[in-house]
Amino acid sequence: MSEASESSVRATAEAAKQASRTLAPLDEPRRNAALEAMAQALEAAGAELFAANAEDLKIAESMSGDEKLSPATLSRLKLNETKLREMVEQVRSVAALPDPLGRTLDAIELDDRNPGDVAGTQGLHLQKLSVPLGVLAVIFEARPDAVTQISALALKSGNAVILKPGREVERTASALVRVLREAIVRQGLPADAISLVLGRERVNELLGMHGLVDMVIPRGSKALVEYVQANTRIPVLGHAEGVCHIYVDRCVDEALALRVISDAKIDYPAACNAVETVLVHRDIAKDFLPKLAAHLGQRGVALHGDEATRKLLGAGAPVEDWHTEYGELALSIGVVDSLEQAIDHIHTHGSSHTESILTEDDATAERFLREVDAAGVFHNASTRFADGFRYGFGAEVGISTSKFHARGPVGLDGLTTYKYVLRGQGHVAGDYRGANARAFTHRRANDQGGQKS
Amino acid sequence: MSEASESSVRATAEAAKQASRTLAPLDEPRRNAALEAMAQALEAAGAELFAANAEDLKIAESMSGDEKLSPATLSRLKLNETKLREMVEQVRSVAALPDPLGRTLDAIELDDRNPGDVAGTQGLHLQKLSVPLGVLAVIFEARPDAVTQISALALKSGNAVILKPGREVERTASALVRVLREAIVRQGLPADAISLVLGRERVNELLGMHGLVDMVIPRGSKALVEYVQANTRIPVLGHAEGVCHIYVDRCVDEALALRVISDAKIDYPAACNAVETVLVHRDIAKDFLPKLAAHLGQRGVALHGDEATRKLLGAGAPVEDWHTEYGELALSIGVVDSLEQAIDHIHTHGSSHTESILTEDDATAERFLREVDAAGVFHNASTRFADGFRYGFGAEVGISTSKFHARGPVGLDGLTTYKYVLRGQGHVAGDYRGANARAFTHRRANDQGGQKS
Repeated sequence: MSEASESSVRATAEAAKQASRTLAPLDEPRRNAALEAMAQALEAAGAELFAANAEDLKIAESMSGDEKLSPATLSRLKLNETKLREMVEQVRSVAALPDPLGRTLDAIELDDRNPGDVAGTQGLHLQKLSVPLGVLAVIFEARPDAVTQISALALKSGNAVILKPGREVERTASALVRVLREAIVRQGLPADAISLVLGRERVNELLGMHGLVDMVIPRGSKALVEYVQANTRIPVLGHAEGVCHIYVDRCVDEALALRVISDAKIDYPAACNAVETVLVHRDIAKDFLPKLAAHLGQRGVALHGDEATRKLLGAGAPVEDWHTEYGELALSIGVVDSLEQAIDHIHTHGSSHTESILTEDDATAERFLREVDAAGVFHNASTRFADGFRYGFGAEVGISTSKFHARGPVGLDGLTTYKYVLRGQGHVAGDYRGANARAFTHRRANDQGGQKS
Repeated sequence: MSEASESSVRATAEAAKQASRTLAPLDEPRRNAALEAMAQALEAAGAELFAANAEDLKIAESMSGDEKLSPATLSRLKLNETKLREMVEQVRSVAALPDPLGRTLDAIELDDRNPGDVAGTQGLHLQKLSVPLGVLAVIFEARPDAVTQISALALKSGNAVILKPGREVERTASALVRVLREAIVRQGLPADAISLVLGRERVNELLGMHGLVDMVIPRGSKALVEYVQANTRIPVLGHAEGVCHIYVDRCVDEALALRVISDAKIDYPAACNAVETVLVHRDIAKDFLPKLAAHLGQRGVALHGDEATRKLLGAGAPVEDWHTEYGELALSIGVVDSLEQAIDHIHTHGSSHTESILTEDDATAERFLREVDAAGVFHNASTRFADGFRYGFGAEVGISTSKFHARGPVGLDGLTTYKYVLRGQGHVAGDYRGANARAFTHRRANDQGGQKS
């Protein structure tokens, strides 16, 4: 396999850190040129990539018993002309995104004069500037396209990346990384900007690389995300679960409610932003629940109800656990006495992902939006809008249910941090203290807030 | 002691989480009124507070052997009229800060029409809104003023706080928390917005409260910060060390360099933003180093030099470890061949806190500012400016050498996160896909970037 698989994980991480120092100061045209070189190299390497993928597929298809892969996994694993073309297009679309680096996030004048206190001199100026995080580690499962997408997002944002693919896709991932490394080296970039770690037994080594790796992104099952979160001191970008709620207020447009709830459940039931629990105000439950049950029943959704719901419907399975993420055409339904009870239920059983209220009463809606603590709080809209592309971020790096660093759908900005740049002319702190202390001006520039520097 | 010390840490954390749900939606006037009530209650409680402090002092003064406290610690521990007045003023100054909550950090129109596609209707609008983190846990040492300052910062930013004071200050902290809780309860706020955990053995319990506690702030020794960082899954705001560098370029104004270096070392040697290592370009070392040695020597600074430095000076102790944070009037000095070597040295031995270049050559300065990976990168300015008050943040919650969430000096913003608020009229995701898909408008409001909503 690749060279990276033979050296130690620490050596790989150190080389990635070193490469990240070279990447960070590169201007946007250089990073975009490297992305275009990656796209062209992938286009040219079809035969090599399909051959590697055929080996992975052969092994995957021969697995049996507990190891047997599902048809869905086998289909995700397979690389063909169409999929390769999509991967190439995706790399080019990442290149076309606005530059997340070099943005002036804030600008404050600390003093308008030089240390000699001469008017009209340059002064002391602070700039808060967006910069790359450094080194990303991405642990994913059987998707070949994860390699190219993540490498493109990392390079666009000036980060080095270490990829740890699932066992099933090791040969394909190795071939892809070889092609990408060769492409960026021809552009004068360090090969170690993109590297590979193979073998399940090395995941823990990789998770121990705090100080060298700046962020881990687990992409895959809930079990994978939880394992990563519990076993590393490196900050993790990801969410283990999405138990999203819709609260149907007493003052609701019923047609709107049926439409939004069925979109939120049926549009893509396996998505983390699909609804799992609908809470209905008691005042309308008797009228609304039978309509909802009929509407969803026609569409094949299995309902699990609390006692009040089952009484009103005269049917339905009980709710076993309000914290269930069905991920399929099934839904928990409960009756609540008030907005407060709905909010309490959401805080107690939710995953702080996305929560929506359906109501024609704006005051009630605003209370819900204000009081519910979640990454997304919606009024009269489907939970399915919680998505980086739908939010207009251009790309989605992941969705975070953490409150730290990035929350909710995360765009390229989530792969950046900032540094404070201070430009003076020999200014010293001692001058701003004591009897004859100079005063800071602390004037904020008008043009703060994300402009390009 | 206080009630909080008798209940379990988990019960305290659960009560704090519950209180944080009540705090989060409070508007600014209510939070400021509670801060003013806290200030007044502290003013009125002098006798009670001094009595509790006298008990702490009596025990502290009686300690002997390994447990004996330094005169500096005893002085920090003591509460008197002046210190209490300062604490009250500090609470009022926090109330006067701009509100960190309810700011529109971004605003994107996803669609300009209702689901019926009718022009002139309200559309689908996304708002990125600043909100509190939730529950802060603060672990600190022997400072009574930490209780009031941290409680004020937490309340201003809509967060509940759990305070874990050092053993030496337990009685004073308990009395302070009692006074503050009574004050906020009279304002209709939940008492558990401010709570106390006592006993060193409960630190680990507190550090295990991920899911309930949203951020830990360790305030104290390097050992404390490192212990907290290594023993919790809760995000930590803090820095264990500040090994700051100044690089003196070949093209330097020597008078400026002497002035900046001595400020950076002497202004407050125990501060984390004091300089610990000066790197000098070889071309000027022979001329500049003797001047620097004389200048610092007169001011009582002990120099530790690399081989080249000691040869040129004919004196000085060797550098034992380039990663030393002296915290006193001592300095490591090294000679480097180039800007690249200086940057490599900083990346290898620094703590990513604050790094400064002294040069008259703007191109060299810009390279340094671009390539050095640290929370602060300075040109011709003392490292001592790395401070929340000097940066103009109004308050300093802490300094972070992490790249996550907050980096460098952290103001009130560091105690906030955001949520995405989406307002629609029954919009569903399915309408934006397939043959007759509607298009997102993804229009960013002009007024993005931190305005008040």
